Formats: sequence, structure tokens, C-alpha cells
Amino acid sequence: MKRETLVQNIFDKQSFLCVGLDTDVKRIPMFLRNADDPIFEFNKQIIDSTRDQCVAYKPNIAFYESLGPQGWISLEKTLNYIPDSHFTIADAKRGDIGNTSQMYARTFFERYDFDAVTVAPYMGIDSVLPFLEFEDKWVILLALTSNQGSHDFQLQKSIDERFLYEHVLETAQQWGNPDNLMFVVGATQATSLQQVRSIVPDHFLLVPGVGSQGGDLGAVYEYGKNDTVGLLVNSSRSIIYAGSDEHFGAAAANASTLLAKEMRILMAE
Amino acid sequence: MKRETLVQNIFDKQSFLCVGLDTDVKRIPMFLRNADDPIFEFNKQIIDSTRDQCVAYKPNIAFYESLGPQGWISLEKTLNYIPDSHFTIADAKRGDIGNTSQMYARTFFERYDFDAVTVAPYMGIDSVLPFLEFEDKWVILLALTSNQGSHDFQLQKSIDERFLYEHVLETAQQWGNPDNLMFVVGATQATSLQQVRSIVPDHFLLVPGVGSQGGDLGAVYEYGKNDTVGLLVNSSRSIIYAGSDEHFGAAAANASTLLAKEMRILMAE
Repeated sequence: MKRETLVQNIFDKQSFLCVGLDTDVKRIPMFLRNADDPIFEFNKQIIDSTRDQCVAYKPNIAFYESLGPQGWISLEKTLNYIPDSHFTIADAKRGDIGNTSQMYARTFFERYDFDAVTVAPYMGIDSVLPFLEFEDKWVILLALTSNQGSHDFQLQKSIDERFLYEHVLETAQQWGNPDNLMFVVGATQATSLQQVRSIVPDHFLLVPGVGSQGGDLGAVYEYGKNDTVGLLVNSSRSIIYAGSDEHFGAAAANASTLLAKEMRILMAE
Repeated sequence: MKRETLVQNIFDKQSFLCVGLDTDVKRIPMFLRNADDPIFEFNKQIIDSTRDQCVAYKPNIAFYESLGPQGWISLEKTLNYIPDSHFTIADAKRGDIGNTSQMYARTFFERYDFDAVTVAPYMGIDSVLPFLEFEDKWVILLALTSNQGSHDFQLQKSIDERFLYEHVLETAQQWGNPDNLMFVVGATQATSLQQVRSIVPDHFLLVPGVGSQGGDLGAVYEYGKNDTVGLLVNSSRSIIYAGSDEHFGAAAANASTLLAKEMRILMAE
């Protein structure tokens, strides 16, 4: 998907919500577990219930992979079911030497036709470039994540007194551009978003951690937005597991509507 | 596999060779491509031809994943075919927030019963700990890799004048121990192995990059060995693609025998 299309969708819907499909077979409603493909059945209803409120979907690949070959079939069916109007992110956090990253890129961009894949920066340039060679496809590079462990290395200061995540932002800008490269910045690090924006004013940011992980949407918008909004805020568990019985679709619709409404108000200010 | 068993295997065989199964459907001999499961057929013959010379196998997950559900079936058959005597490494370079890393750990340690999985350190402690909770299973954490991009961040100096990879080694030692944690150190960085050994004297190191990537086995052994050898040296393409016709098994046997012979001489010195 082209950047202009994504931006247009955000303004049309007045929403920058991404719904995370972290679909865990142990957490989906009991009545679905005997379906032919419980994971796909669950995702289908979640997509039907949330598509009007969100602009993107982000399947978490770990959850599908853990089910073996059948999990990849459920993933493919899910991806085919997501409307073309929605931006799709393979949350895979891949990254390896060049020829291996190329293989990962082909998997997610050719075999599965995702718009974007999350990539880990530790191995540097040749682990990222192969993903950037696909037209209208995106790398979403980890910068500052929302978890406790982000303090171990990402927030370590380098010899020029800058954090590692700042170096990642600066260096990666030389590899890609705002049309093919986004960054992951956790919502629990909202005040750092100002600093992130001073380094990457134009790039989209994928912001996980609103909802279950405790991030504050208002602060994310205040510190993270740019002229074209420039944000995709992801919520997974607080939407998809909002309900646990046969009404889980309605519960997900409610949860996503509440977030989208908050976004509409923020965008109108 | 327990550490003592791995060490015993290395001394029994006088080899610390790991064969990387980066099996690319486009590079396997033509005559195999019409087999029922060409990837498994190829791996089977490679394993038959190299098992006496090596102590470990390392399937590169990207190559299997790129084939969709069938790739995971080929991977499982391959894993089942590898003798129990051999240490098995899922080269997957995973790493995510806690609940997702737990999912990845279950995939590789429970569903597929690998002995070890490679993990990327960027997201810190909670991305690694879930893998360390499995008995007799191993994390192999990226430290200093063999590719060009290792210079981007791994060799960046922090405020205390130490490289990032040194911090990774120091910090991760608090998470695991020499019985469940190894580190990846590229063979093309052989002189850095001395520095690595000063920080982690007892941990095993997985050393890729000998062969196609140009690393020097003698230097790796000189700078990287410890009392129990403490090395797994991986070679992939220079062994598995040593031949390209129906004699590829014999060619792989030759290539692995040459490396194993070199190891035997080094260990005898």
C-alpha cells in the first residue's frame, strides 16, 4: 500500500487504529473451538466487527507459527479475508544476514502479500535492505519498544550520550524513507515520542501498548502525531478478548469503537 | 540436550562442526525437484552424508517458512530424521515481548523439540527469559554477527567505551548460565573472540561464517576455544551445496570431512 493511500484512509475514517490479531487458541471462546478452523473463524468475526473502526490489522506471527502448518493456513485465510482497504502488518520481528532476510521478505511480501513486516535492527543494514526492495511494501523497524526489557539495550547511552534507539532511528533513515520505513515506538514510552519525532519527523510510527500494556492514547497523539497523523496505534488483547462468549464480536466492536471515538476527538481538536 | 552430553560428543568425535541446513529449493540438485518432498529428500541425504563428521545441525527457519505450510512439514520430518545424538538448533532469530516470546519458545521447544533456538537481544530481558524456562533447552543469543551490518550497532561504543555486543554478553550472563545460554559470534570477527572469551569464558559460542562467508577455522579455534572446546562452528552453503548433481551427498561428505579433519588436528595440538 502506498503512503498516500494509508494517510487518506486515516483521514477518511478519522481513525489510526490497528487491531492486533494475537489469536491464541486457548483464549478464544469455547463455542468456537470445535469449528473446522477456530483461529480463522475467530479472526473473521473480529474483522467483521472492527473493520469500520480501524485502518490496519497486525497478525502476531508467533501465535500462528505455534500451531504448525495449520497455523499458517489459518494465517493465509485471515489475510485473504482482510479487506484490501486495510493495511496489513506481519508482526514477525525477523532479521538475519542478507540472503536469509531476503527469504523472510519473500515469505511475507510475496507468498503472503502483507503490506509490512516488523524487523529487528540488531544485525544492521544487510538484515534490513532486502525488505526495502519491494515496491509499496514496508519495513517497520523496532526502535523503542513498550516492554520492560527496552531498558536493557535500547535505552543504553552511547559514547555521544545518545540512546541506542536514537542511533537506530538516525542510521535507518539512510536505508529507507517515509514511503517504505516505519518505526515501532511503544505507547508506554509516550514522552520519548517527542524525541523520536525530532529525529524522524515524517516517518509513520507503529505504537503498540495502548490497552493491556497501559499506554495512554492522548499522550501518544500529543507527542507522536505529525502533519499526516503519522501514527498507527495498535491494540490487541483489549479488543479481541473484550468478550469471551458468543457475543465476543459485539464486545470487540464496542472496544474498537471506544478507541476510534477517542481518536476522532483527538483528530478534531 | 545437557551440556555434558554435548561436550562428550565433541570429544568423542573430535569435531565441533555444526552443519547448517539452509535448504533452498532453487539450489538443490535438479533430479530431486520432482520428489514428493524435495527439501526433506535433500536434507536426508545431507544428514546421512555428514552425521559422522558433525555434532549439530542448524536448520535456517527462513528457508522452510518461505515454502508455506509444506515447508514446516519438511522441517519436522528433517528434525525427526536427525539422530538423537546430534544437537539441533532452530536458527530463527526470534525475540518479542514476554507473552509472544513464550509462544515462540513453545513452538521450537515443544512442538518441534529443538535443543536450541537463536534469539535476538534488542528487546531485552523479557524477550529472552521465556526461552530459558525449558529444561535442557538453550538460547543462542546474537552477540557479534559475521555480516557487514554488525558494524551498525553491535560495534557501536557506549558511554563507558564498551561495544554494544559486550554489554549484551555481560547483561545476558545474568539471565542464563553456561548450561542454557550460548552466544553467536561470527567467524569473520575472529580476533574479537579473545575479547568475547574474557567476558564469557565458560559459555558455548556458535560461530557461523566459516566457508562461504570467509572465516578462518584456525583463528576461530585459537581465539575462541576454552577447556571444553566451547565452540560450535557452523558451515552451511560450503557443505550442502558442495555438489550440484546426483553425487551431492558424496560432495557434502567430503566437504564436512575436510572441516572435521581440520578440527581434529586443532584439537590434538
